[in-house]
Formats: sequence, structure tokens, C-alpha cells
Amino acid sequence: MKSTIFAPRNIVIKKKMVKITFPDGSVREYESGITGYEIAQSISTRLAQDVVACGVNGETTELNRPINADASIKLYKFDDEEGKHAFWHTSAHLLAEALQELYPGIQFGFGPAVENGFFYDVLLPDGKQIGEGDFKTIEDKMLELARKDEAVVRKEVGKADCLAQFKAAGQAYKCEHIEQDLEDGSITTYTQGNFTDLCKGPHIVSTGIIKAVKLMSIAGAFWRGDATKDQMQRLYGISYPKKKMLDEYLVMLEEAKKRDHRKIGKEMELFMFSERVGKGLPIWLPKGTDLRLRLQEMLRKIQKQYGYQEVITPNIGGKNLYQTSGHWDHYGKDSFQPIQTPEEGEEYLLKPMNCPHHCEIFANRPRSYKELPFRCAEFGTVYRYEQSGELHGLTRVRCFTQDDAHIFCRPDQVKKEFINVMDIIQRVFKTFNFSEENVEVQISLRDPNNKTKYIGSDEDWHVAEQAIIDACAEKGMKARQELGEAAFYGPKLDFMVKDAIGRRWQLGTIQVDYQLPQRFQLEYVGEDGQKHRPVMIHRAPFGSMERFVAVLIEHTAGHFPLWLTPDQVAILPVSEKYQAYAEQLKAYFDTQDVRSFIDDRSEKIGRKIRDTELKHIPYMLIVGEKEQEEGTVSFRQRGGGEQGTMKYEDFSKKIVEEVRKMTEKC
Amino acid sequence: MKSTIFAPRNIVIKKKMVKITFPDGSVREYESGITGYEIAQSISTRLAQDVVACGVNGETTELNRPINADASIKLYKFDDEEGKHAFWHTSAHLLAEALQELYPGIQFGFGPAVENGFFYDVLLPDGKQIGEGDFKTIEDKMLELARKDEAVVRKEVGKADCLAQFKAAGQAYKCEHIEQDLEDGSITTYTQGNFTDLCKGPHIVSTGIIKAVKLMSIAGAFWRGDATKDQMQRLYGISYPKKKMLDEYLVMLEEAKKRDHRKIGKEMELFMFSERVGKGLPIWLPKGTDLRLRLQEMLRKIQKQYGYQEVITPNIGGKNLYQTSGHWDHYGKDSFQPIQTPEEGEEYLLKPMNCPHHCEIFANRPRSYKELPFRCAEFGTVYRYEQSGELHGLTRVRCFTQDDAHIFCRPDQVKKEFINVMDIIQRVFKTFNFSEENVEVQISLRDPNNKTKYIGSDEDWHVAEQAIIDACAEKGMKARQELGEAAFYGPKLDFMVKDAIGRRWQLGTIQVDYQLPQRFQLEYVGEDGQKHRPVMIHRAPFGSMERFVAVLIEHTAGHFPLWLTPDQVAILPVSEKYQAYAEQLKAYFDTQDVRSFIDDRSEKIGRKIRDTELKHIPYMLIVGEKEQEEGTVSFRQRGGGEQGTMKYEDFSKKIVEEVRKMTEKC
Repeated sequence: MKSTIFAPRNIVIKKKMVKITFPDGSVREYESGITGYEIAQSISTRLAQDVVACGVNGETTELNRPINADASIKLYKFDDEEGKHAFWHTSAHLLAEALQELYPGIQFGFGPAVENGFFYDVLLPDGKQIGEGDFKTIEDKMLELARKDEAVVRKEVGKADCLAQFKAAGQAYKCEHIEQDLEDGSITTYTQGNFTDLCKGPHIVSTGIIKAVKLMSIAGAFWRGDATKDQMQRLYGISYPKKKMLDEYLVMLEEAKKRDHRKIGKEMELFMFSERVGKGLPIWLPKGTDLRLRLQEMLRKIQKQYGYQEVITPNIGGKNLYQTSGHWDHYGKDSFQPIQTPEEGEEYLLKPMNCPHHCEIFANRPRSYKELPFRCAEFGTVYRYEQSGELHGLTRVRCFTQDDAHIFCRPDQVKKEFINVMDIIQRVFKTFNFSEENVEVQISLRDPNNKTKYIGSDEDWHVAEQAIIDACAEKGMKARQELGEAAFYGPKLDFMVKDAIGRRWQLGTIQVDYQLPQRFQLEYVGEDGQKHRPVMIHRAPFGSMERFVAVLIEHTAGHFPLWLTPDQVAILPVSEKYQAYAEQLKAYFDTQDVRSFIDDRSEKIGRKIRDTELKHIPYMLIVGEKEQEEGTVSFRQRGGGEQGTMKYEDFSKKIVEEVRKMTEKC
Repeated sequence: MKSTIFAPRNIVIKKKMVKITFPDGSVREYESGITGYEIAQSISTRLAQDVVACGVNGETTELNRPINADASIKLYKFDDEEGKHAFWHTSAHLLAEALQELYPGIQFGFGPAVENGFFYDVLLPDGKQIGEGDFKTIEDKMLELARKDEAVVRKEVGKADCLAQFKAAGQAYKCEHIEQDLEDGSITTYTQGNFTDLCKGPHIVSTGIIKAVKLMSIAGAFWRGDATKDQMQRLYGISYPKKKMLDEYLVMLEEAKKRDHRKIGKEMELFMFSERVGKGLPIWLPKGTDLRLRLQEMLRKIQKQYGYQEVITPNIGGKNLYQTSGHWDHYGKDSFQPIQTPEEGEEYLLKPMNCPHHCEIFANRPRSYKELPFRCAEFGTVYRYEQSGELHGLTRVRCFTQDDAHIFCRPDQVKKEFINVMDIIQRVFKTFNFSEENVEVQISLRDPNNKTKYIGSDEDWHVAEQAIIDACAEKGMKARQELGEAAFYGPKLDFMVKDAIGRRWQLGTIQVDYQLPQRFQLEYVGEDGQKHRPVMIHRAPFGSMERFVAVLIEHTAGHFPLWLTPDQVAILPVSEKYQAYAEQLKAYFDTQDVRSFIDDRSEKIGRKIRDTELKHIPYMLIVGEKEQEEGTVSFRQRGGGEQGTMKYEDFSKKIVEEVRKMTEKC
């Protein structure tokens, strides 16, 4: 043992240094006690201005908390989910602070950040109520307080002290919460100005950056969501670091309302729900089915080119299947419960995913390396229980059909397969005009400081992660790398698209999986004659048919591209006299696969045109005496007014040609 | 009141007369006490020779049972299911009679008729066993006894007497059965020669018409199917009224074995089952999926022409949905049991049929008479519990996909809709070369003597039954009319096809339904502005995708028509040198939608040809030096040897043209 280690050569006291690992894997050393804000400053002044919270070893926290050990760090701006969350959480406190000034004696319940903003549950004394007419006053008070730029100060408090403090403040609900739910030693409060809240955080460090606030709505809410308890008032609000951002949000909200896929889906008769069939179980109506099948056909065609093989598997599987896959242990209790048989004591589960069935297909007979990659695709309908309160149109459902596939391949094939899947996803996005600058790509990698969270060997992870990174590089795709965001069974690549009004939707996903091949003991015989374990890749370019169609409706406001839309052409006879000619046209269009319908109501032609404009039909044909005599149609294009007159066969050819051009790129 | 009724004018004692209604609805009068056999004689001597049992008011019974009241009657020949059943049931007794002579002290369990023949469970004394080597002796003894043409005599016996009788005969299992299962007053025995069996019947009236018998197999069977009870031996046999029929059956059986869809399905990798997924839950492998999707596309195309609208509905529905449909009360206990949710106390059922979902679609918004018929189609996957012992390949499964549709129409549209559906079914059958003489059609009507069994008004039934009869007449379709075979909710039309080796399969079905529109309170607004109830027609031309594919495999022995078969062309390079050319061909065929694969094994060409012959591939291409140089292929046709050489583009055109011709008729 060398003495140098124990005997200091000089006596300069060096401050302890900590190693900070950034999301891109780079590492810098700082003095112990450094804060997230100081780290941001060390990178750039601009970054320090924009940063609102930070993540330390996967946990979001305040920017002013000292870091005293080696750590992975992420700096969050308002644009990041975590940044927004802290910003809106502090805004909820700001709302409470304002209310406390405006309504002395007010009682506070819970006040969290939510997906779009924040809320606070409150109760005014003496049965008084806050109304929408009070919103302006409250907003002004919030901004007035924010302008003071008060620091938000975190404090760890003992349970007894905490209880005494909130009792003194007359906050009965907070006291009940402390008594019933919180443990001594884990309680924190946050204070800004004269307002202190019981809170776990995290928050922004001071209120000054809250520049715009808007109260959105007010609703009744039971204390603890329990209808037997006190009814409080829930105030919803949203806030931004810039006034312009709030304005844009409000415009987007208006636009989103018009595009709500639930509203358009009903108007266009794409899908429905039925109480008797069940909540969150979409029923695809004829026009929706038509559209969905066209989407499926499009993907089928692409997948065939990439060597996919389609299968059809049952919607249930034995409980044992999900014990093998690990699903039963992880999610069994929170899922639709097992289906018993009337005899024989069997138990089945509605399938929540298709992978275990596909593993059984792979395992059905011995496989050779020559057969790999085996790309097993299925439009598989799966069932996942969600609380009925969480359900939302087609985006949050209990039954959905994944455009699923599992690629079983050798480790050295992962990169090539990733590139192929990325090609497919890009072709899909291109077809729907989600242009490249509106698609964000994220590579989710393992947290190198926390390897025990993951299964699979270092070597496997290294190969797979590098394969994804290389695949993105080869595709020239700018991808954000996120450490610690991988699933425990493998790294993944996610695609987020920005729609026509700027909202982001998570769509396609590609995941590497080491776990299932191991759990199902999958094997192939390699070129060396030995048995090897395949790697499995999960992928779904649409995500699910339901979600994709919902996004498509909201992206296009129901104005689907010509090739996809259920009705391409509306035929509008100017009077009943031309009904026969209209029918002749429709019959002809049918033979040419041009989808048309006749508006045979006995309405004036002006009314028919106006009604059709609202119906998302790309073309409308006005047919009367002249058209009938000449065998022509006068046509109008959606949003484009009158376009001219042509022989009906030529019009049909025009549609067919437009569709051909649109679909040849996919 | 006229006195004539009470005061007889003369004293001639008239025997009471009974009205006998025949399946075609005609009525004849006979003297009371007439038997089925005598009725057959009254029609023709030939009929009396062929008839083996009769149905009286829907119950099968012996030909010599006197009929003492008005009744509906059916005369069954051996060709009828009911006739076969009686014939084979008596044959089981004949087997027992023979065994009793050959093996004194033998104990008898149960001995019923089954789908193809009969069995008897027996136990020899002193641990002795019957072996296949004994079959000839037993068969000879059965025929020897049959030649005695012993009458089969039915006797009603009291429980105590019956028990004494079987105790005396030393039949312990029969005694247990009498004691545990039978009620005094309902017990009958049947005796032929020296053998008496405890039996409910029905039987043929004497054993002489049993001209050919064959024991098929022997297996272990527990008494009462209970593994804790005695193990007996189960002897399976079959019998016929003509030796030729038995010979034909045995030939057919050999042929059927070769065509077994389970065997071919596995060889061709069309489908599989997995223990972990579950029994009776078919998994469609890529080649099977490919074939199935082509069948679906074919039907979709036809349905589109007939104005069908496709929908997609979930595989589950709320329990309430099936309480409304009546399914829960009728079948709930014997079905897959309800699925509970982890919260909210909901209950769902796997859907056993698609109709309730389609009713909900109809009820989704007000409907006008103008929209009718609304033809709602779905390839709907349904789940029905069957005991695992009953499962068989794709023909008896727990999960299957119906090519389902429900037509909601006005009563006056029923005939037209029936004709349309019959058109569709005929087009489907024609496509698969089920020629007209091999398709049997049956109209199932209400039993006019038993109207209370059925729901719906007399008027409705009359209109619907007449519509079906008229539709068959208009289509020039010979249809058998069967009284009393209608479902309780409406009349129906069934299609049975005879396959290439003479077996009959029930495929397409069309049913009228008054019940569901009533239960779901379905309505449309008529031309009169009033609300009316629609009629519902259920129909499925294939029946189910699983069953149809099974029948198709057994009908074609796996040699599917060119347009449908998964692999159309096998490319056989004569050596590795021509692999590149083979790949060039495959790539070209891919662009032309010609489905091909390369046999790239390093086997001799002769071996490759022989192996491909076994693989049900319509065409194989031999490619070597000459072909590569000239850009040609030498091709062989399945079963047809060498066919010649042509440019590969021309060969591809030839295939495309053959497919076009085959599919244009459907």
C-alpha cells in the first residue's frame, strides 16, 4: 500500500468536488453545494434565465437546492413537462395567496398542478361563493403579488409544529390531512410572502417569473373527492412566463374546441359510444370503419414491402400466459379481472398487449437464424382498464387496436431493423403532412448511475443503445437523448408530433426488449449450430388506430386527405328532376372506386351547398339541366368555391389521379 | 244449440280419426292408433322400406308406436340425422347383445349413438380385456344376431321391478344408474332376443335391417367420466343398412384422414394452438392470416356491391347489454363468466354474438324509412364456451370470427333482402366450386300446431315465411321446408354443402328475427310519420372464418384455388449459382402481386420438386443456366408435370390473368 494516499503532501484545503452527469452523457465537476441554477449559469446566462426547475437523479426539485454528491442532472425550462409542472404548482400557491388576501377566513383543500395549468379547492366562510365575475379581481391580485417577486422558501417541519401552525391559521382541511396522511419527518412547507402551504414541492424559486395568469373555470368538488364530505369550490387556472404565450394558448383552446374529435367524430358519424356496451369502448360506425380500414390497408402495404408477416390472435389468453410475461404480477390487480369458465376451473384475461401471443407464435416451432428477422405484425385489439373518469373520446379508452408488430432478430440486426421501422414511421407521418420540423424524436437510454433498475447485460444494453443512436445518425434524424428514460427491459425511441394548432401528441414508438425473450425462453439456432436468444423489438407507427384517428381529426379538423376521407364527393341535384342523373353519376363513381353520395333532400341548392361545406366533403358537384344534357358536372372544391365544369368521366379520372398521387408516396 | 250434436242419428260406431300434418304442411286423416310405419305404407311401399324412425310433434320415436291424437309427423330414413341416430342406438344394443353372448359376466355402462356410429362402455370380469384382435369375432356375432331380425320391444317398467331385474342380471352399473338418476314412472327398457337394456330409446323396430357393422376402436373410459371411478373399456362401432355404404364410409374415412384440416393446417402453417393462450383459441399464422384476409376482402367486395356498411365493435359488452338481448338469462351460466373491473363494480361479458352491438348502432340516432334496409356488417370475433373435450381443430372452437351482418329493414323488404343474401351466398359457393347439386337448402318454419313456442304475431310470421318461400321460388332454388325447425324468434334458411368426399357441412345461414328489435325497442319513422319496428335479418355466408377455412381445407385437401392460396409459385434454383436469378424473379413477382418463395436449400433439384409437390403449391419454376441466360422460367403445374418454358414476365402475366378470371366471377 502506498503511503501517498494517507499522507497529504500539502495542507491546502480543497473543497469537495462532485461529478455532475448531463443528459447527453457528458460529465463536469463542480464544488459540492452547487445548485441547479448555478450549474445553468455556468453553461450560459441565457439558460440561467430560462431554467425553472431541475431534475437531480431523476427527481424534480428546486433550482436553489444544493447538490452535495455525484449526480445526474437535467435542467428544465418552462417548455419541459417538469418545468411547467413546477411553474403551475407555484401558480396554484399564488392563487391561494391572492385568495387569502381577498377572502379572509377562506379554507384551503388541495391545490396541485394539472395537465394544463392548476387548480385549488377552496371554501369561503359563511356559505359565500366565488363566481366567474370575481375572476378578474383574483387574476389582478395574483399578478400584483407576482410582481413582488417573492422567494418561495422550502422548510422541513415536525408534524406537531406543522399541525399547530395550520391550526393557528384556522385551516381545518390541512389539519385533517396532516393528521391522517402525513408522517413525522417527511413534512415540508413552502412559503411566499404571507402565505404558507403544506406541500411536497417542487416549485420555482420565486414568483416573479409568473407574468400572465388566467382563471379558466370554477366547479363544485367534494373534499377528498368523497360525496359524503364537504362540497368545496374548485378554481382552475393557467399561467405563463409571457403574456404572448397565454394569448396563444387561449387562441389554441378556441381552435381546439372546434376540432374536438369527439364533436367532429359524432357529426361525421365516425364512431359512437353506448352506455350498454360500456364506457370507453368505441364502436366504429360505417364511415369510421371505412376510414380505419383504409389506414390499415395503407400500413399493410408498406409493411409487406418491409417483409412483415401478419397474424391474428385471440383477444384473451390464459392467466398463465400473463404470469409468464410478468403482466399478471405487475398489473393484474388493476386490470379487467380474470374470466372464469363455467367448468374446468380455467382462467383467462382480456389481452392488454399482443406481445405474449406473438412470443407463443415464435416458440411454436424451432427457428433458424436464416428466418430472422421474423417481423410479426397484428392489428391487435387490446383491453386495458382505466377509471371511467379518466376516459376521453378516442384518446383515452378501455379498448383499442394497436398497429402492433414484434420483430424477433439477432442482436446484430437491431440497427438495421430500427432504420427500417423509422423509415416506415417517417412514411406514415409524411403521408399526413406531419413535416419533419414538427416531429420530435427522443432516444430513451439507461441511467448509467442506476444500472440495477434494468435487466439485461451491460453488453446487450451497449449494443442496443448504440444501434439506436447510430440508426438515428444514419437517418440524419436529430434525436434528443434522455438518460434514465428507458423502460426497465430496454431502450426506446419515441416520436412526438406537433399538430396543425401546435399541440404535441406522442404517436409512434419503437422499443427494444430483452425481458420477454428471456421469460418465454425464446431461442433460435445460430449459424454456429448453437442456441441463441433473439432480441425483440416492439413498434407501432400509429400507436393505436383509435388514438391516431383522434389526432388526425384534430390535426385536420375533420378535413381528411382526399384518399382517406369517407365521402369524397357530394352530388347535389338542383331539383328532383335531376335525381336520376345524380344516381347515374353515383353508379358510375362506384365502379371507379370514387366514394360519393347524393344530397336528395328537397332543399334549395344554396342550402345544400352551405350544408355540404360544413360536412368536410372535398368535392361537391352541382347538377342540373345543363349538366344532364351535356353529361358534365359543375364542381366546387372544399374551401375553394366554383372550379369549373367537366365531363363526369373526366372528373372521376381527376379524383382517381389525385388519390393515386397521394398514395404513391406511402 | 242444435240437437244433432248430442243425438246420434245412426248407431254405426265410427273409429276416431286423427289429423296428421306432414312437414310440407299437407294434412291427411287416419284412424286413431295408426303407426308411423303404416303412415309410410299409406304413402308408398318404397318409403315404408326405407323409413327407420319417425318424429311425432317434434319428438323422435319408434315406427310402431300408435298415434292417438292429431299430430305433426316426420318420417325419417337412414339418411336423416334422426334416422341414423335410432339405427346406431339399436346397433349399440346389438353390440351389447353380442358381447353378452361372447363374454358371460360382462358388465355394461352406457351405450349411446354418437355423431358417427355408437359406442358401449363395458367391463369384462376378472380383469380380462377386449382387444382389437377380437373385433372380427364380435362383428360376426353382431351380424349373426341381426340376421335373426329380432323385434326391439319397448316396455315401461316400475323403478323397483327394473332394479330387481338388473340386479338379477348382475348389472351393477345399471343398478347404480337406476337408483341415482331415474324416477319411478319414467323408466323404459328395450329388449331384443335375450338382451334387455335400460333405455329411453328411440330405436328401429327390429335388428334385421342392420346389414353391415364395423368396430372402429377401443379406448379406456371411466364410469360416468369420473377419474375416481372404475375404468371400463369403450368400444366404438358403426353400422349401415347396406354393405356398400359401410365400404364407402371406410374409404371416405381414409380420405378424410388425409384431408384432416388440423394436419394440413399444421403442415401449411396456417394456424396453431398454444396451451398458454388456451384451448380452442386459434392463432392464425402468417399464411393463414393472408388467406383469411383474402377471403374477407372477397366478401367485402361483394358486400359493398349490395350496399352493406361495415362496422367494428368491441369484443366485450356490459352485462346489461346481454340482459336486454336475453342472452344472459338463456346462456349466462354456461358461458365464459363475467369480467369484473377492479373498481366501480362493473361487469362485462365476452361477446358471444354481434347482434346486440349492432342493435345499439341502429338505436344510436333516429332512423328514417328512407335509410332502410340498413345492412350492418362486421367480421366480428366472438367467444363461446365449449367443454375442452368437445373442441376440434377449427370446426369446434371457443373463439371464432363470424362474417356477420344484420339487416334492419321494413317488413315489405324481407323478400328482396333474402334474395340478395341468397345471391351473395351462391356467389361465394360458386367461387369455391360447391356446385348447385351439392348445396342443400332448408327453410325452417314454425310448427303450426305449437304456436305458443314462438314470439311475434301470426301476421309477421306469415309475411316472413312467405317471403322466404317466395324468395327461394324466385331464385329457382329447390328448398326443403321443415315445420317446427324455426328458431323461436323467426324462420330461417340454411345452406348445407357436400364436400369433395361427400361429407355435408352446414355453412351459410339466414334468419329472420322479431325478438331483438322488440327487446331493444328499435324504431324507425315510416313514410306515414309514425314509428315502426324494423325486422332484423341475421346472415353469415361463410358461417365463421374458422369453420369455412376448415371446410375449405378438407374440401380441397389443401389445394386452394390459385387466387386464394398463400404461396402461388415455388422458385427452385437447380443450384446455388442461380440463387441471384431466383431472387430477381421473386422481386419481380412481388411487384406484380404474384406470391412466390425460393427453395434455397442445398438439395438436389429432384428432391426439391418432390418436396414442393407435397406442399400444395400450384406452380413451381425450375431455374438454371438456360433460364437465367434467356430470362425465362421452366414451369410445372401441381399434378400436371412439366408445362413448358416462357419469359418470366409472361409467366407472371399468366398467373395474374388466371387470378383475374377466377375472381371476376365473385
